[in-house]
Formats: sequence, C-alpha cells, structure tokens
Amino acid sequence: MMRKFVSDRAGRNIILVRSFHHLKQLLQRPLSATQSRFLSSTVLDSTSSMASSNSSAPPVNLDTINPKVLKCEYAVRGEIVTLAQTLQQELQSKPGSHPFDEILYCNIGNPQSLGQEPITFFREVLSLCDHPAILDRSETQGLFSADAVERAWQILDQIPGRATGAYSHSQGIKGLRDTIAAGIEARDGFPADPNDIFLTDGASPAVHAMMQLLIRSEKDGILCPIPQYPLYSASIALHGGTLVPYYLDEATGWGLEVSELEKQLDNAKSKGVIVRALVVINPGNPTGQVLAEENQRGIVEFCKKAGLVLLADEVYQENVYVPEKTFHSFKKISRSMGYGEEDLSLVSFQSVSKGFYGECGKRGGYMEVTGFNADVREQIYKMASVNLCSNISGQILASLVMSPPKVGDESYESFSAEKEGILASLARRAKALEDAFNNLEGVSCNKAEGAMYLFPRIYLPQKAIKAAEAVDIAPDAFYCRRLLNATGIVVVPGSGFGQVPGTWHFRCTILPQEDKIPAIVSRLTDFHQGFMDEFRD
Amino acid sequence: MMRKFVSDRAGRNIILVRSFHHLKQLLQRPLSATQSRFLSSTVLDSTSSMASSNSSAPPVNLDTINPKVLKCEYAVRGEIVTLAQTLQQELQSKPGSHPFDEILYCNIGNPQSLGQEPITFFREVLSLCDHPAILDRSETQGLFSADAVERAWQILDQIPGRATGAYSHSQGIKGLRDTIAAGIEARDGFPADPNDIFLTDGASPAVHAMMQLLIRSEKDGILCPIPQYPLYSASIALHGGTLVPYYLDEATGWGLEVSELEKQLDNAKSKGVIVRALVVINPGNPTGQVLAEENQRGIVEFCKKAGLVLLADEVYQENVYVPEKTFHSFKKISRSMGYGEEDLSLVSFQSVSKGFYGECGKRGGYMEVTGFNADVREQIYKMASVNLCSNISGQILASLVMSPPKVGDESYESFSAEKEGILASLARRAKALEDAFNNLEGVSCNKAEGAMYLFPRIYLPQKAIKAAEAVDIAPDAFYCRRLLNATGIVVVPGSGFGQVPGTWHFRCTILPQEDKIPAIVSRLTDFHQGFMDEFRD
Repeated sequence: MMRKFVSDRAGRNIILVRSFHHLKQLLQRPLSATQSRFLSSTVLDSTSSMASSNSSAPPVNLDTINPKVLKCEYAVRGEIVTLAQTLQQELQSKPGSHPFDEILYCNIGNPQSLGQEPITFFREVLSLCDHPAILDRSETQGLFSADAVERAWQILDQIPGRATGAYSHSQGIKGLRDTIAAGIEARDGFPADPNDIFLTDGASPAVHAMMQLLIRSEKDGILCPIPQYPLYSASIALHGGTLVPYYLDEATGWGLEVSELEKQLDNAKSKGVIVRALVVINPGNPTGQVLAEENQRGIVEFCKKAGLVLLADEVYQENVYVPEKTFHSFKKISRSMGYGEEDLSLVSFQSVSKGFYGECGKRGGYMEVTGFNADVREQIYKMASVNLCSNISGQILASLVMSPPKVGDESYESFSAEKEGILASLARRAKALEDAFNNLEGVSCNKAEGAMYLFPRIYLPQKAIKAAEAVDIAPDAFYCRRLLNATGIVVVPGSGFGQVPGTWHFRCTILPQEDKIPAIVSRLTDFHQGFMDEFRD
Repeated sequence: MMRKFVSDRAGRNIILVRSFHHLKQLLQRPLSATQSRFLSSTVLDSTSSMASSNSSAPPVNLDTINPKVLKCEYAVRGEIVTLAQTLQQELQSKPGSHPFDEILYCNIGNPQSLGQEPITFFREVLSLCDHPAILDRSETQGLFSADAVERAWQILDQIPGRATGAYSHSQGIKGLRDTIAAGIEARDGFPADPNDIFLTDGASPAVHAMMQLLIRSEKDGILCPIPQYPLYSASIALHGGTLVPYYLDEATGWGLEVSELEKQLDNAKSKGVIVRALVVINPGNPTGQVLAEENQRGIVEFCKKAGLVLLADEVYQENVYVPEKTFHSFKKISRSMGYGEEDLSLVSFQSVSKGFYGECGKRGGYMEVTGFNADVREQIYKMASVNLCSNISGQILASLVMSPPKVGDESYESFSAEKEGILASLARRAKALEDAFNNLEGVSCNKAEGAMYLFPRIYLPQKAIKAAEAVDIAPDAFYCRRLLNATGIVVVPGSGFGQVPGTWHFRCTILPQEDKIPAIVSRLTDFHQGFMDEFRD
C-alpha cells in the first residue's frame, strides 16, 4: 500500500492517499504503536500533490500563500489605521461629514508627520551630500552653516571615490561606522568596534535579520515582553518561530522582573521550546519605562546563565523625560560587569527614526553585534550582502545622530536649542496626556519615563465588553474605533501589543504638537464621558 | 521502547534515542515496511532535545543557526570580493605589494563606484527636498536649476504636511506613486494604477517580499533562468523554496525558449514540486540579452496556461545598446494581448540603481503588482506595513526616473546630454570589452544587447580544471582568482550564477570608465595569455 509521509502547508504531518478507497483501506489496517504515535499529530489528506501534478499551479489566494504571512499581524498599521485613512478621504471629499475636521495620527511614533521640524544641521549635511557639486560654490556659504559644509566634506572623504550614489560595503561605509563606534564609546565609556556595526534601513530590517538567523522552526522561541512592539511578534511569525511571552508588571510601572523571565523560560522549555534570545525594549515601547541599572545587570546575568542572545531594542535611548532615570546601554552594563565577547551574545538596535530627531522617513539605523563567533558573524555579513547595503542618506544620518555638533562648532548653539526644545516639549506633552488619562473615569496610566508613548489601562464596563463581543471585536478595539469615529484621534488597541488577559489598554503617542494638546484632551474627555454614560454598568 | 519522530534543524526526519544502548536495540529490531519507508529519509540522532531541556540554550554556531541562512549564497559579494578587499588593504598599507596599483571592481553593477557622475537634475531635487528651508532663499536660485526648484515644491506638496522626515504610507507617498503610474502609462500606452505600486528600498526587498509570499516549503518551486542573478537563488534559499532552473541558450545569444520552460515545468511537477512563479530578467543579468516581443508573448502565454505568477525583473529597462532591440515591459505585452487583471498575476520590479542614473546607494525602487485578488493584495500591503515604508529619498528618486525633465524644462538639454552621454558610452564600453573577450584564445562572448554585463564563456584546458580540483575550487573561480591576483580586476565566476554543467564563464560589468578600458583589455589579455601558456593541454 502506497503511504506517503509529508508535511502540509501548516507544517502538520500528513499522509497522502490516492482515493477514498485507499483511505478506507488505510483506516481498516491495525496500526503499530509507532504508527499511532506518528499519526497522533497527523491529518489524513486526500488532496494528493500527485493527483494535481498535471494541472496548472494553484491559484494565488489565502489558501495557497505562505501561512506565516497570514499569521503575521502588525497592529500599528492595522484596521484602525485603515479606517482612519478612509475617514480622512471622506473629510477631504465631503468636509463636515464627521464631527471633527482632521485625523490625529497618535498610532505611530512618527514625529514629523505631526509637525515636528527636522534638526537643521542634520538636514544641511544630508542636502550637501546629495549634491556635492554645490559644496565649493560661494552661494553655499550663505545658505549652509560652516560646520555642515565641513562635515559634508569629511563624510565625502570617507566614501570611496566620494561616490554617494554607489552601493557601499555591505555593513555600511567604513568611515561612518568609525564615527558611530566612536559615538558609542563616548556614550558608554567602553570600546566599540566599527566592524561590529551593521548599518540598516531603520531598525526593523535589523530585527528581521536576527530573527532570520536564529529561528529554525516553531521549536525555537524568542522571549518577548508583553506588552511588546508588534514588529517582534510579526517578525517571529514571519520567520516561523514561537513568541515566548514575559509579562511586564503594570503595578510597578511596567517593571521587568528577572523571576518572571525565569518562570517563562522554564515554562517554554517544559513545552519543548528551545529559547534562543531575549528581547528587551529600553526605554519601553509601548510602555515607556526606563530600566534601572540594577535591573539591567540582572537581565544580563539571566541571559549569560541561560545562554540567550540579548536583543536590546535601544532606539529610544535619547528619549528619557524624568530626571531620576538615565539610559544605559546593555553593552555598557555588561562590560561594566566584566563581561566581554566570550560571555554574552548581544545585539543593540538603534534608529534615526526616534530620539529628538525623529527622522522616520530616512530609514537609517544600525545594529551593534557583539559576542558571536567568527563563523556566525560571516553568516550575518552574508545576509547583509544579499541586500547589498542600506541607503546612504540613512547611513550618513546614523553617523550624525551618534556624532552631533560639539561645543565650539558654528551650529552647536542652534542645534542644542532645537534638541532641548523638542525633548522638553515631549516631556511636557507626556505629562499633560498622562494627567489627562488619569483624570478619566476607569482609566489609569503609568508615567512615560521615556520613549514616545503612553499605554493607559481602561477598566471597561461589562456592558461595553458585551457590546464589543456582539460585533465580534476585541473590547479595546471597540473603544478605539469609537474614539476614532467620534474624535478623529487614532490610537492602537492594547490587544495589538499583548496584555494580561482580561485587561484592556491602548497606545497613544505623545507626539501631537503642544498647541493641540488641550483640544485633544478635551475631545478625549468628552468622548470618554459619553462612552461611559452609554456603557456604565 | 521510546521512539520519537521529530524533524531536525535541516528539516530531516529524525528519531530521538535516549542512549547508545537504545540505538543498538532499535537497529536490532526488524522494521515494518512503513517504518522502513519513513526511515529511508531519516537520520538517527542521539542528541535528544529532551536531554538538554534543563540546560541552557544551544550556543549560537553554524549547527544551531537557521540552515536556510547557511544554504544561501550570493556570489556577487562572495569570496572573490573578500579577497579583493584584502588586496586593496594591502595596496594601501604596502604600495607596490602587488603587480597592479588599484582594484577594479567589475563584480557588481555599481556605476558610480567606478566614476560615473550622478544626473544633476535628480541630485538637485533630492538636495532641495532634504533641506526645504532653502527653497525660497535667493541664493538657491543661483545654485539650482529653476525646474529642480519647481519639482521640489511639487514633491513637497505631495507629501502630507510637507514632512520629508515622516514615515509615508506603507506603499509609498501617494503623489509619487501617481507620478510613477503616469510614467508607466507613458512608457507602455496602457493604464497603470498608483495603488498597484509598492515603493521599496531597491528591487531586492521587493523580490524577497514576493518569495516570502509565495513560498510555503521546499515543495514550492520558482522557475529561474540559468544563468541567473544570484539574488533569486539566495532569496529562494532564505525562504526555503526550490529553485527550478530553466537554461538560457548560449548558442542563440542566451535565448529563452518556451519549450525549455515547459520541459522544466513538467520535470519539476514529476518530482512533486509545485511551481508557483516564473522569474524573467529582461534585459538579462548576467547575460545581457533583450527579449524579442514575440518571445515575450510566448512567455506570457506560458504563464497564463500554467497559472504561474510572472516575476518580471525589469530593472535594466533603460539599458539597451543595440538599435535592433527595444525594451517592452511584460505588462505592456500582456495588455497588448488582451490580457487583464483576471488573466495573469504579474509583478514588475524596477530600481533606481540601474538605468543611466545608476543611483545604487539611494536604494529606491518599486514593484508594480497586478492580477492578484484583493485578499492577497491586502497581505502584500500588510507585509509592507511591518517594514513601515521605504526611504523617502529613494521614493522621490523613483518618481524622478519615471518622470525626468521634459522638452522645455530648463534642465532638459543638460539632462538629455548627461543621459545620452552615459548610454552611448556604455554601448561603446560593452562593444570594446566584448571584442576583447572574443579575441582571447578559447573565449567566446555574446553581445551585451542590454543591462550592464558580459558573460564570456571560457573553454578551460583540462590542465587548468585539474589544477582547480587540486585546490578544491570551481575551475571558473580558479580562473577569476588568478585574474584578480595578477591584474586587480574583480569579476564573478559563472558558477555563482549557474551554467550548463561542464561549461565555465565569468561575469564582468561594462562599467569601468572609457579611459580605463584599453589598460584593462591589455592587462586581461596578458593575463589570459600567461594563463593559457601555463595550462594549455
């Protein structure tokens, strides 16, 4: 009897059968213990690939595409945002068609889309590097600051042949990596090696690269915070791995407890999951907490003991708003504990999209990769090579954010004023929105110590939860959709980030410009009161 | 007896055994026919995951990373290039240490790295969009052409809030997609929809996205030309699919025969491979042929009949050097045959890296996605969303290449002169190198009708093949390494692209500047003569 063991699209073991008769025969035969065991995870499937081998290819539809793609979700640009785009179009074509006259995108950390101005010095340098022909024209002196011109020359000299339009080294232009490594050294007080830097189109491709490297199958797990930035869940799903959740403690300001890491690691192991890495987002997204040094040391110790790669999302390293907290990189922490390359595999992600510069559209970033053996490093390099290189403007900008103007440079004062202005304003906005959320009935909101988000908890009335169930959406998505339809404010339901079951949240950026905050607070408060009046138990 | 069927890292079926004793017992027991069949593809593995379930995670090494990463190869930046980088460092630290004083990178289509100047108009617009603050300064009028200023304003007005530093719509800025769609319409004479355009960081991520969408397992095959651009083999390997080769016919100028497609499709089907898509690179890379219209119609018909997605790599659409050939997009061909969305799933890839502009470092490009149902389109959109958006400078540049200055614009004449100058020079360089290769003993080289490469065939003497075998490398890699060590010229062995077994080639770009060609030809000729003198049978 022909019996073929293969895997189906969902990775289940299946036995191909030629016909219904064949299937009946198969089921009548007694099975050995081994066969039974194999069959316990098996689906009998009569659609043999042999049967279709002379017809045309399967049509491209949801049943025939990669199921990992189907599984992947990214709430930050999910359904609520699609609805917002529709409302925006309706507002344009029919002004007055909604009870608000603009859509306020608080769903995504995209500062310049909400009116933040770019940092002048950075843009001057980028502009000059894009058109070096003007560098020695006299008009240029009147248009650009002297140190921007000087920096542009420096950067051009670091690019082989001054060819800003050429593919660079797969890891990025060496001179720029030198600058970045020097910036990391200045930040941490420990050496950094330019050969450890991989420049990338923002942090997302870097995260994907590490997931691609580490995940072999759904047996491989990645420890991720819950709530988490959904790039991680999306990337783990796309690469076919298992997200192993660890919960941040809302009651202690989204505390990250090593005991929780240990518990979840053991739990995963008992299910046969091989945990490969730990993701830590510091400052937290969507949660906004900044880790204490002592806590970071515990995390490093945990990774070392468990042999986990530490994937440190440090893209908000410049976004700290409370005087009692300071950002420390995990590299600095581990080196200060005496741990070197041999002790810990550590990847730090940085991006030009965040910080005070918020240059999301430039898609610049890097990862600093330490503590991997030479063979594996070569594989990471090969993966970078397949994509040739990241965009050069993004590379240049990544070097600028790690090496901004210094005291004495012509731009220094204006640069510092821009930087401090933005950071101080972000701190005020975070506080104003936090207070507003805490003033709402049935809402509690932790402080945004850093990053760009608040993640308030809403204690939804049972009546609201039932109403959401009736239309088959998550209760927090129900709330967010109502909020959008009533106010034009776009926030992301907590269910898109993960949360303790039975709790409900949403993520709201702190990025609307300050002059808009009072109106936002008032619209939000009115909406919330109306919502509670409608659904209060 | 405990017997556990699982899959190992390489996807092989394995049976976990507790001990060597257990293994011996297992091997002594007679196996049923079913067990035998299952075991025929099975490896016995004594390193049970259960045994290690209480220890720490596996170390990160070549045995524990994703085997798909290991399998992926990308010759264009492979070993030869690594050697070239080492030689370059040696030349810098010890001038005169090699019989040449510079490394000539002919391994990669990277025009500006070899001295090609960027197109002025494009760079002016990019520069202005990077620093819009100078747009209404009087000095700017003296530095930039009037139409560049005007175009920059147009583009800024297409960006919501003029925020060039914001993430855009996941598919790219709508106004830029409108411009691109209009450019496609002007090129093809058939409508194009801006909602079908997905802007990407060069063409590579677009190719990866389609492979990720279509490939479910190694049972899914992608028909690829041999020789092929190794991005395709690398991407198929990374996504775990099967490359189904079809051979281009060197004897007819790298002809693409539909009968060969049919043969290979049937062959793949008979092996149980489900072929999902056909990759066609036109103009060809590394082969340089430009497909005839009639041939393209046959290919479209083949894809329609077989139900295959047509993945059309059209990044060299502006690089055609012979008067008897014209580039036609597959979209134009299929529409001119009366086929619409319902008839054919078609993806066209375009890039700002190639053409006459060669802006590799900008990482701009797009794919035009037609003939997929709404559900699948939504999944493609979701995948784009996870990566937020491609870089805005690249997006702007993609719109510029599809909508360059027109008659009457201030820049038109200088733009046309730059464009025609580069294309005419590329045609001369292609011819000069083609002739030089054909003048070598035992070398034959097809014409580069288009693209940026020549792919000469070398009839290597048996003695050379034996010498290569002795040092355990492919004979063409042996030749290329010798060439590099003797002349500093970097080319890529044909084995990195695939070739008919027993034939040997290398890929050489036509990109060195014209004044360098005579010296290159003379170094190459001298080397080749010496090589033949050493190894002639």
